[in-house]
Formats: sequence, C-alpha cells, structure tokens
Amino acid sequence: MSGLLAGLEDRIAGVRELYEDLHRNPELSFQEQRTAGVLAQRLRTAGYEVTGGVGGTGVVGVLRNGDGPGVLLRADMDALPVREVDQVPYRSTAVGVDADGNESPVMHACGHDAHMAALIGAAEQLAARRDAWSGTVLAVCQPAEEVGGGARAMIDDGFLDRFPAFDVALGQHIASAPSTHLYVRPGVFMAAADSLQVTVHGRGGHGAQPQATVDPIVIASSIVLRLQTVVAREISPEDVAVVTVAAVHAGGKENVIPTTAELKLNVRTFDPEVRETVLAAIGRIVRHEAAAAGAPREPDIEPINSFPLLVNDVDAARRVSDAFAGEFGEDVVHTPQAKAGSEDFGAFGTAAGVPSVFWNFGGFDPALYADPARPNAAVAAGKAPGNHSPEFVPTGLEPTLLRASSALVTAAALWLG
Amino acid sequence: MSGLLAGLEDRIAGVRELYEDLHRNPELSFQEQRTAGVLAQRLRTAGYEVTGGVGGTGVVGVLRNGDGPGVLLRADMDALPVREVDQVPYRSTAVGVDADGNESPVMHACGHDAHMAALIGAAEQLAARRDAWSGTVLAVCQPAEEVGGGARAMIDDGFLDRFPAFDVALGQHIASAPSTHLYVRPGVFMAAADSLQVTVHGRGGHGAQPQATVDPIVIASSIVLRLQTVVAREISPEDVAVVTVAAVHAGGKENVIPTTAELKLNVRTFDPEVRETVLAAIGRIVRHEAAAAGAPREPDIEPINSFPLLVNDVDAARRVSDAFAGEFGEDVVHTPQAKAGSEDFGAFGTAAGVPSVFWNFGGFDPALYADPARPNAAVAAGKAPGNHSPEFVPTGLEPTLLRASSALVTAAALWLG
Amino acid sequence: MSGLLAGLEDRIAGVRELYEDLHRNPELSFQEQRTAGVLAQRLRTAGYEVTGGVGGTGVVGVLRNGDGPGVLLRADMDALPVREVDQVPYRSTAVGVDADGNESPVMHACGHDAHMAALIGAAEQLAARRDAWSGTVLAVCQPAEEVGGGARAMIDDGFLDRFPAFDVALGQHIASAPSTHLYVRPGVFMAAADSLQVTVHGRGGHGAQPQATVDPIVIASSIVLRLQTVVAREISPEDVAVVTVAAVHAGGKENVIPTTAELKLNVRTFDPEVRETVLAAIGRIVRHEAAAAGAPREPDIEPINSFPLLVNDVDAARRVSDAFAGEFGEDVVHTPQAKAGSEDFGAFGTAAGVPSVFWNFGGFDPALYADPARPNAAVAAGKAPGNHSPEFVPTGLEPTLLRASSALVTAAALWLG
Amino acid sequence: MSGLLAGLEDRIAGVRELYEDLHRNPELSFQEQRTAGVLAQRLRTAGYEVTGGVGGTGVVGVLRNGDGPGVLLRADMDALPVREVDQVPYRSTAVGVDADGNESPVMHACGHDAHMAALIGAAEQLAARRDAWSGTVLAVCQPAEEVGGGARAMIDDGFLDRFPAFDVALGQHIASAPSTHLYVRPGVFMAAADSLQVTVHGRGGHGAQPQATVDPIVIASSIVLRLQTVVAREISPEDVAVVTVAAVHAGGKENVIPTTAELKLNVRTFDPEVRETVLAAIGRIVRHEAAAAGAPREPDIEPINSFPLLVNDVDAARRVSDAFAGEFGEDVVHTPQAKAGSEDFGAFGTAAGVPSVFWNFGGFDPALYADPARPNAAVAAGKAPGNHSPEFVPTGLEPTLLRASSALVTAAALWLG
Repeated sequence: MSGLLAGLEDRIAGVRELYEDLHRNPELSFQEQRTAGVLAQRLRTAGYEVTGGVGGTGVVGVLRNGDGPGVLLRADMDALPVREVDQVPYRSTAVGVDADGNESPVMHACGHDAHMAALIGAAEQLAARRDAWSGTVLAVCQPAEEVGGGARAMIDDGFLDRFPAFDVALGQHIASAPSTHLYVRPGVFMAAADSLQVTVHGRGGHGAQPQATVDPIVIASSIVLRLQTVVAREISPEDVAVVTVAAVHAGGKENVIPTTAELKLNVRTFDPEVRETVLAAIGRIVRHEAAAAGAPREPDIEPINSFPLLVNDVDAARRVSDAFAGEFGEDVVHTPQAKAGSEDFGAFGTAAGVPSVFWNFGGFDPALYADPARPNAAVAAGKAPGNHSPEFVPTGLEPTLLRASSALVTAAALWLG
Repeated sequence: MSGLLAGLEDRIAGVRELYEDLHRNPELSFQEQRTAGVLAQRLRTAGYEVTGGVGGTGVVGVLRNGDGPGVLLRADMDALPVREVDQVPYRSTAVGVDADGNESPVMHACGHDAHMAALIGAAEQLAARRDAWSGTVLAVCQPAEEVGGGARAMIDDGFLDRFPAFDVALGQHIASAPSTHLYVRPGVFMAAADSLQVTVHGRGGHGAQPQATVDPIVIASSIVLRLQTVVAREISPEDVAVVTVAAVHAGGKENVIPTTAELKLNVRTFDPEVRETVLAAIGRIVRHEAAAAGAPREPDIEPINSFPLLVNDVDAARRVSDAFAGEFGEDVVHTPQAKAGSEDFGAFGTAAGVPSVFWNFGGFDPALYADPARPNAAVAAGKAPGNHSPEFVPTGLEPTLLRASSALVTAAALWLG
Repeated sequence: MSGLLAGLEDRIAGVRELYEDLHRNPELSFQEQRTAGVLAQRLRTAGYEVTGGVGGTGVVGVLRNGDGPGVLLRADMDALPVREVDQVPYRSTAVGVDADGNESPVMHACGHDAHMAALIGAAEQLAARRDAWSGTVLAVCQPAEEVGGGARAMIDDGFLDRFPAFDVALGQHIASAPSTHLYVRPGVFMAAADSLQVTVHGRGGHGAQPQATVDPIVIASSIVLRLQTVVAREISPEDVAVVTVAAVHAGGKENVIPTTAELKLNVRTFDPEVRETVLAAIGRIVRHEAAAAGAPREPDIEPINSFPLLVNDVDAARRVSDAFAGEFGEDVVHTPQAKAGSEDFGAFGTAAGVPSVFWNFGGFDPALYADPARPNAAVAAGKAPGNHSPEFVPTGLEPTLLRASSALVTAAALWLG
Repeated sequence: MSGLLAGLEDRIAGVRELYEDLHRNPELSFQEQRTAGVLAQRLRTAGYEVTGGVGGTGVVGVLRNGDGPGVLLRADMDALPVREVDQVPYRSTAVGVDADGNESPVMHACGHDAHMAALIGAAEQLAARRDAWSGTVLAVCQPAEEVGGGARAMIDDGFLDRFPAFDVALGQHIASAPSTHLYVRPGVFMAAADSLQVTVHGRGGHGAQPQATVDPIVIASSIVLRLQTVVAREISPEDVAVVTVAAVHAGGKENVIPTTAELKLNVRTFDPEVRETVLAAIGRIVRHEAAAAGAPREPDIEPINSFPLLVNDVDAARRVSDAFAGEFGEDVVHTPQAKAGSEDFGAFGTAAGVPSVFWNFGGFDPALYADPARPNAAVAAGKAPGNHSPEFVPTGLEPTLLRASSALVTAAALWLG
C-alpha cells in the first residue's frame, strides 16, 4: 500500500473495535443519539471540526486542508427492528421503541455499522496523511437512511449553507458478497422505493358468526395473493419491479373477527412509467379485493415513505471504478446490475448539483460465493445471508473494513490528490 | 307478576345501576379482580355466604334455605379486548394488558355484564323471598369464559368438595335478539370450539430481494384463502363447521420481509367426526401451503384452548321452556337452532353428573328484528350488532334485565319451588 | 310377501335384464329415444295405454282399473356425460353429443336406469295384480331430469289435460346407501339449485407478453378461490348452501393467453333468503375479481337452469314411511336430513295441486356403510361412491331392484288399496 | 435505392398480393400444405431449385450463383388457433383441427404471413439481380415454429446433408412496432421457452356433495394463483422470467364435479440457472397445492415442447445493424432489450456451427407508438396489438413489406455482395 493509503492497515484494529461497539449498540432511525456521540468524538479527536444535531441526530465533520476540491464522504447510522441470531460475541441484544410506540429488538442487520467504521477509518487516515492532499473533506454521518428521511432532514436543516461546498459525494454500502470485492455501476444503480400503508376496513364480530361480519383477514389475504400478479402479469419482462407486502397485522383474540387489517407494502422500480403502472395496479387490486368481500368502506392507502432512484454519475463512477481496479486489482472490481434496493444517499449530490458515486463492498467469507461477480446467486440459493436478515453479520471483519476504508480514501484521492 | 317474582320489578333500577358500573369497568379473563369484589359485596349484603378466589377470581355465594334441591345459577365475568364505539354514556374506556403482554382497550362486547347483573337480581330476589321456597342456591360468578378455562379452573380448585351439592345447573347468555324474548333448545345447543396458534416459518430478508427469502406473508395469505375450502368443500352440507382465522401478525418494518407469521384459528363443530375432519384438513393445508413456498421448516400448530359441546338435558330444558312460556307468554319463547358459539358452562353439570340448562335472552330493540324467531337474520343483514362486535351494547336495559333475572328465578323455582 | 306384492319377487330377473340393457345404453338429456322405446314397449306389453313423445321423449303409461284415486309413479330416463370405469360386464361404452355439440362418453352415473327398471317392475306388478286394487295408475317416464327441464317440458306439453287426474305423485331416487334401505323425509327434502354460466372477458395476447394482456385465467382462478368464501364466511352456520364451480374452460395453445374464460357454477340452497344472499355474493365477487385485474369489461353471468325446492307433503310422507316400516321392517327405514341435491319431480305434484312424496333407496353393498342411518359418512370418507361418480354402479342388484319396485307398489297401495 | 435493392419497390404490389392470400388461408403447425405449395411455386418461378416436404411441410429453395458464401434466409409458415376479429377485407375465416382433434378458427396472429411474403420478395429480388452478387442463397420456408418443432424436424430430415452449406443464417420477425423500423440485438435476443402440460387428479362426484369429492378445479385455481409467486417472489429483480398458464380445462356438466383438470404452462427464461429455479418451483407448487386438497395422487407434469435461447452472433449482428443504419437511416434502427418471446430459428445456425442473426421489423401505424425505441410501452398500455392477439393484423402493408424484404436483401448482401 502506498500514497494516501500508507499506514491505514495499522489503523484497522481500532476501526474494528469501533465496529463491534456500534454493532452491540444499534439504534433505530432518528434515535441514533449514542451512535452520533461516539462518531462525533472520533472525528473531533482526529482533528475534524464537528457539528452534531444536523437534521436530528446527524453529525458533520469538516477537515479543511488548503485549497482544492471538496469531497463529501457519507455513512448512515441507523439500525433495524430485527432480532439478531446468536452468532458472534458482539451480538446485539438492544431493544428499541419504534415510531408506532412498539418495543422491538434492534440490530444492525443492514450493516450501517460497517459503513460508519469504514468512514471513521478513512477520515482518520485522511487526517493523518493531510500532507499528501489538499482540499476539504466533509465526513457526513447521516441518520435514518432506512426510513428514507435522513438525508432530506440534513439538507432541510441547512446542510448546503452551513458547511463547505463539495465537488463530489461518495458513499458505499456493504453487500452479501466476498470480502474485499467492490461493485461499481455507472448510471442507474438503485431503485426508486415507495412504501405504503394499507388499512382494510371490514366489520368485526364473533368468530362463530362469520355471516354477520366482513372478514378483513380474508380481504387482506386476497390482496396479498392478488398483488403477486402485478409483477408476474402487469410488468413487461423487460422492465423491473418488486412488490413486497412486508407486514400484515389484524386481530387479537382467537374468537373475535377484527374490524380492520393493516398491511405495509414496499415497491421498487427503475422507471417512472413502471412505477406509475405498479402504483395504479396496487390501488386497483386493493380496492376491488375489498369490494369483492362487500367491505363497508374502501381501504385507506397512505404513503409511508418514498426513495428516489440512485443514479451514479457515469464519468465519475468510471473513474472510481478504474482507480479501484488499479489499486486493488481488476479481479475484485465488478460492474453489477442495477439493484432493487433503495438509498437516499443521492439526495446530497442532487441538492448540490454535483456528481454522486455510490458503490458496494463485500463483507462475507468468499467461500460462500461460487461466482464473485454474481454474489446474489448465493443469496438466492440460501447459501449466504441477505441484507436485513437476522444473520447479516459480516465475517472477515478486518480485511472487509480495511478494504472499505481504503476504497473511500482511494475514491476521495481522485479529487483531493 | 306473582309468586317468587313478586317485587322483582322494584329491584331493577338497582340492577341496572350495577350493570352500568360493570359495563364501565370491564376486565380481561382471569383478571376480574374489581368485578369479583363488587359481586361478592352484593351477594354478601343479600345474605349469601360468599367465597372469593375460587379458580383465580371466581366468587361463590351460597344461600341455604332449608331442605330441598340445590340449584346452581351461573354468570361469567370476563370482558374482551375490543374498543367500544361511542354509543352510550356508560361506555368503557378501560385498557388492559392481555396474556401476551400487549395493551388493549377492553369492553364487555359479549354482554357478560348483563349476565352478572341478572344473576345478582335473581340472587337478591331469591334471598328476599326465601319464605316462598326451600333448598340451596349457589350463585356462581365464573372467571374467564372467553378463553375457555374459567369453569375448569373453579372445578379444579375443589368446587364440588367445597360447596353444597346441586341438582341442576342453570345459566343464560344475552343474544342479539329482541329484548324480553327467550330461546331454549333441548339437546345440543352450542358448538365444540378449538382454537389453534399457527406459526409459519419462512426466511426473512430485504424487501427488495424476495428471491433470497421465503416470504411467510405469502404463505400465511395462501393458508387463509385455502382454509375457506374446508367448510366450502370438505364438510357435508348436512353438517356444520366454522373455520375462522381471527388474527394474523407478521412483519414490522415496511422494507424487511419477516421470518415468521402467526395465525390464530378458531374452529366450531357439532359432531366429533366433523371436528376430526376439519382439524385434519387444517393440518394438511397449513403444511402443504408452507411446503408449496419451499419453507425451511414445517409450521407449528399449537392448541390455544378447547371448548366441549354444550348439551342441554332434554327433559330439564323442556320443563324450563314450558315454565317460561307459562310465565312470560308463548310468543316470546322460541326453540332456536344449535349455535356455532361455544360455552364452558356445561363443565359444572358434567362434573357433578347433573342436568344443565342454558338459554339465551334477547337484549336489543325489537324493531331491529323482522322475525323474533330468527334474530340471526337481522345480524346477518347487518341490521343488528352481533356478539363481540364493538357495537354490542344492549338497549331497552330495564325490560332486558328484568326478564333475564325473572328467567333465572322462574327456572330455579322448578326445583326450589 | 303378501297382498299387492305377492309374486313380485319372480318378476325381478326380468327387471334386472331390463336394468342391464338400460345401463349399457345410456342417453343424454332430451335424447332418450331408444330408452323411451324400450320402456313404452314394456308398458304396452303389460297392458298400459301408452303415449310417447310427451315433452320431447317422455312416455306416459295409463292403467285404468275401476273407480278410485289416481297415483302417479315417476322415473327419470336421462344419463350423464361421464366415462364409466371398467367394473361390470354391462358397462356403458356409449358416446353422445352434448348440447354444446361436443362428443362425450355417456353413463347412467346417477342411477336413473335403476329408477326405470324399478318403475317397470312396479307397473308390471300392479297390472298383474289388478284384482287387488282399484283406481288409475300413471307410469311416467320423464326425460331430462339432470338438466332440470324434463318435468316442466311434459307439463308444458299438456300433461294435466291429456292424461287422467291423480291424487298423489310418487317418485324415488337411488342413493349411495345399503341395498334394501329406504330414506323418507317429511317436509323439505331436496335443495333449490341454480346453475350459472360466467364468461370472464380479459385481453388475449402472447404468453411471453403478459403485460400486454389481461389474463382471464388469473381472473377465473381468483373467482374460484374467492367463491369459497361465500359458504365459508357469508352463510350462517345455521343455514345451508353449496357453491360449486363444476367447469372452467379457457385457452388453447400453450403460448397464447386467451381472451375469455368460461365457468359453470352450481348453487344449492334450502331457503329463499339464503339463495338471494348467495347469488348476490357470486355476482359481487365475479365482478370485482375481474375489475381487480383491470378487465376491459364486466363478466357475463347467465342462468343455465334452475330447480325449485323439493318438498314432501308431511302427512303423505309419514304415511309412506309408516307403510315402509310395516312392510319391510323399522330397521331399514330412516329419516334422512334434507339433501343438497336437486330434483324436478316436485313439478308434477305442484302443477296438479296434489301431495308429492319422494324417497331414496340404497343400492350398494351394506358392508360399505358403518351406519346405515348415515350413509353419507361412507361417501365422505371415500369408502362408497357418490352419485355422478364414474364408479356409481349399484351392487346387489336383485335385492335392490326388488326393494325399489316393492316400495313403489307399497306406497301406491296406500291410495289404491 | 441502389445496388441490390434497385427495383425492389416495383415488386411490392405482388408481395402484398401474396401476403393477403396467405393471410386469408392460414394453416396450423405441420399442416401448412397449401401454404407450402404457394411458396414452392413462387420460388420455382423465380428460378430457385425447390424441394418440398422437408421435415413435414418444409420448403427449401436454392439459388446457386457462382462462387461465394452461402446465406440462409428463413421464414416460418404456421398460424395459430385464434379467431380473427373483423378488421380487414382479407380477414381469415379458416377453421382447422388442432393436435388434440378439436376444431378451431385459425389466424396468422403472429404475422408469419408477413415473414413469408417478405422472404419471397427478397428471394425474387436476389434472383432478379443475380448479376450483382455471387454465392448461394437458401430460401427456407419452415413449418411449425409455434409449437417449436419445425426447425428441428427439417434438420432431422437431413437438411444439412441435402442442401448446400451456408455461412450465416438470417431471419426476421414482425413486431408490434412502427412500420419501417428495425430492431437488432447482438447477443442473447430471445428467451428459452418450456411448455408443460399439468394434469391435476381429484375425485369427481355430484356438485351438491363436494365433501365426497376432491375438487380439481379448486386445486387448479390454487395452482394458477400460487404460480404468480414464482416470478414475483422467487426470481431476482435482476433476472427475467415469465410463467404463463395459457389454458385450463376441467369439467363439463354444471352439476358434476370433474375428476381431473388440465393446465398448459409456458415458461420463458434467459439463463439456465433461472430456468432450473422456475421449473423446480413449478413442480413444487403443483405438487403441494394438490396435496393441500388431499388429492388422491400427484399431478402429472409432462413437457409439451421446449425452445432454446436465441443468441445472435455479436459481430454478425453488429454488421447487420450497421448496414441497416447505413441503408435506412439511424433513426429507424434500434437495439432492443432481450425479448421474452421464443424462436426455433437458432437451430439452423447452431446445427451448422455458423452465426445466426435474427431481428424484428415493425408493421403497424407509427402513430400508435409514442417512442419508436420502446414500442412495447404502447402494447402494454393497450394502444397497440401484441403478437398472438386476435387484432394483430399489420397496417401500412406496403412500406412494411418493402422494408422487410429490403432488410433481408441488405443483410444477405453483407455476405453475398
């Protein structure tokens, strides 16, 4: 390792320690108080000028190092209401209270802890090697990526006015893929996501008198099954869409037919027309499946949140990809397909009118993946855990974190170096 | 009104006051502490020898009045986790914590408050008129009818040994039917009920990567729809069964496919062979709908509770029915069909080896029911509320409570008089 | 055997021969040409005055035997488009052309061949013993019971004017029940039946381009599954209904999504209000399941045919039942529940304003039925064949036919004797 | 127009006449007797050496014109069992008998008539201008593309041995796209297709006695709905699959529950692993949906036919695309996405070990398509007819046929010129 990366390897034990601490102490979206405190402290110690409470719990560290471009490096801080399986000594047993007021176990099941650790590793390295570059680094610790409002909240809180300008926004996400491998896609990279809350209205009553009720559970079940036809029948094989019903809740006592059922839907698309087709089909199916049961009123369909498409600047992404291949070897740098996952990272670059580049890094035992270029095949086959699974705990931590920190520094160096 | 009933009418304002107090203060199964206290106090004041804490919160009042038969009069005390709609000034706004530890609004949506008020009315009347009969009255306030364990808990707590013997067990339940009407059926009256908890095991993951998961919500929905075929296809039109899925719970965050889904099922049957057919079909459907999705393991099917058939002694029920017709007029006494609802009242008579008689009394505005002999038609048509509905609040309270108390006294008089 | 039955036993070999001939040569509804010819010939030989071609292929034989009441004895002649399994030497290999012009194997899968043979046995016996009774016998061989129009066609063809008056109409149907057992129910005996044709309109196209189509097969499948909820959720457990989708046809080539799908529905009910509820629910479900798919137009729902309730006169049926018990023994005479099957036999009695009595006789090996009073249990358990099954070929033919002929004579004797 | 195309325009009226004749007289797969005769005659007249009866009804015309490469030009001849809507004076009213022996209307609903007309136009043009090129042309009229066996049948009938060698195989297909536009994709162009016949085994019986049956229509409907989850849940959004149930047939009489149900399935995939996943999921769902109903035996799943992937040689396809752009203008030449449709054209090139190039040409009013590069959007929106639809009758016939003939000649000229 040479240039800006020299010495980064020595830093990784400390990065790993940070990772394990964050993993043990996950916090739900917009509640990342402790996390923000830990990160702010690390950045301050490294010499960054730190501002907390940006857009809620967001933290911004600024390192001004002479004239030159500004580079924004972003990690996201929030965890998920998932109960971690018992796999590692630093397992989370944390419990949180979600936005609906329900208690839930909490876990970094999407790997944001690795993003934060890698960002701190890169930020500390850039601070340590500030003789070797000039410009300004913005280390951004964003709240609430999972619910889609965190980037927007920081921008709405005056981010562009309060902090130095930047010429590129860089970010990364851990994937179920072999540790040390990197995945960069110029152009459309991640899907638009729309989440909806559907409330079905039936008529409650006694479980032994269904004829006196309109059973909302039958309606909800019919909706779930019929929604499968949206992707299977209404979307061209040439287009991409995902429609997931991620939650259904109805009823309490085993002999009381409830009055309502609640569904949470999540939709992914890569094209505005396809998005419109899918949302219209959902509305149509939800309404008519309720009407088929003689429901006393139409279901309510309310938006929960919405993520835009994440589009990497084509030129900037190619430069980053080439730099990765040069630094780490061509065999570990891949061009993936566009992903159905969603991200609000793009909001920073879009708001500032500058290019964004976002990539994935692998974080799991390479033996799990028959073909490093197609790691999803292993996930689909059930051989490797997917994001948001209760088993999504990275292995090979030190190589993973070293590669992720190095990737951030390498990409940043394209502008700063 | 004459004989044992003389003066009962004057007592009804006090009975109504008790009803409204109980309605305002509902308590969930096995948590009927306040209710038990109120009832024990009323019985003690009326001259009964009162024992509390029988089978948990059960209360037994004994009135010995010379030689003669023993008559058990029973009311049930528990309420339901239902949020009452705003219809009456004595509406419940109570909140309870159910057996799973979840908070819930609570309501007397099954009318047990009316049963208790009517029992107290009858008990006070019998105490007041003890010159006119001889024998022993057991006024039994039973906990936890809704969950099916209350009668069994009292019997297991030594009921038969600790209290005087009885020759008949009498009980009643309010129905969605015209106030002052009575419904007595000799023979099989109420269904056997079996409640089951089904846990579907899928594989969780990211909402945008369904291919890496086994979606338990799709499995649960398929089970719900396919279970409709049990009654529609597998049971003879000459037999009766009800299969209700009364609860389904799965998932939390809108972009996380959960690992499991929970269903609560309720089954009603009138014949042991039909019961076996239905339970076998449920098992078969649940297993194969999970296997159709490639579920990683079979669903778990666990019993929640089980109610036996409620069978009225044919001779005793006919005597009661004839006495009602003689006292109140033939036009208000009906022979209903067997009901799909369930009851654990029969446990007392069965345990003691004596006849049981259980009947229904109406409690709603007669104008709602085109044909008093077929009140269910009005419920089915949505014109009258059914038991367990959040609108199940009796109207015409004073005639209703007077008739219900009178019915208990009239039936008791067949043995005591 | 005595009285009117004396000598009937000797006649049974000839009745059996007739049965086997009819079984080998089944004909579809309104096409019973050969059958009618055979029956007319037998009746004429026995001394009846015979008229053919009544209401299409109907045959009426009249035997006037002095003053006295008129008794109508009816058998139905048509067979079903079912391919008989290879069980007996007199198996049908006939092929017919149905009303839609399609070829089909034909089989007496509903046992009308046994009805005809038993009627001829009874008619010959009454002719032979005409010294022992007085009055008039009408032996009616009706076409097209299966499609519901045969009795109506005979009546519309002047039946009441062209033939002698009668005081009672008697008929019988073979059941999956032990040979020699009889089943008589006063009051409502068989269900009203409504058959409907549903045409679902989608939009056809290439199997690889579902997005350019509205797939009528998905709509039809959704309708079939959702219709299961009508009986399972919308009908009271105290009421009875059956909703069967008996045919679904859509598509041809494996890579062409068709434009339409055709369904045939069959509905059974015992109560006019329940019938209305079921038909309304079917309409609602069919419409909204099509709309949920964005169908270009509403499905068509057309009636195919309709059978009224079959109601036995209470007094006449009790007299018949008592006569059976006296003649054949109480242990072989049962009071069954009302049946979901349908019959147009009632049209004769209704048209003439006289009582009808219709009963079932068993026709299968008694060892198949654990409880002769509940033969349906064996059918439900798959131990005995049901009507319309390709295995519905009676066994124990001679006792069965003797008992069926004797039953007709015994019942007729109540009026003629 | 210049070079090899000079004079082609004058030929188009005759090509159109041929088209209309073929459109009026469609024939089903492997029954293309009349069609083959017409084409053989035209080729012979143009100077080709013609062999008929190759692989059934296939026709091969050979034009040897000095030394040089061999070029195979292929059109397919068969039509579909679709009833044409009344749109054009040359509408088909033909009736055919399909492989199952059923009568059906027949229509060139996939546009093979346009392929044949364009091939004849090109073949005649090449014959007329034989001074301008040298080499050998094979004009191949293939039977039975729709059922996937025609190319294979010709090859199995000694095609490679009996006819001159060729260096490239060229073919084209009409699409729902603007007339005169061309669509060429290097690499994977069309999907693998697998068609399956599924026979569900239930237990038949009377429509009023569902409890004595296992209803195969409920099973079939459950299979259809559950199959929607294969694409919606089991395939990665990054992969492509189509699962269509194109036919379902069960039952006859409206009151007889049938014993079996027949389904025809069609599967499209672009990747062998995805194909395996889909076929395995279909098997699993079919088996378990039957088992969920307690079916007496497992469904049968039999292959109907199978098409391999159609892969265009990357270099050859780029050369063709560039030649089209040069000849017809860049604005009418597009690179489409891979298509879910299937083709057996590739069998010729694969068998001979030479490159294949297959492209689409538009054939409809350009006003129907908002974006010529994405014509499928118009089909999806219901604005333009899709292949196999009863409305798939090309408009703008003369420009369409001129462009299609010119495209064949232009592509052939790359090798022959």
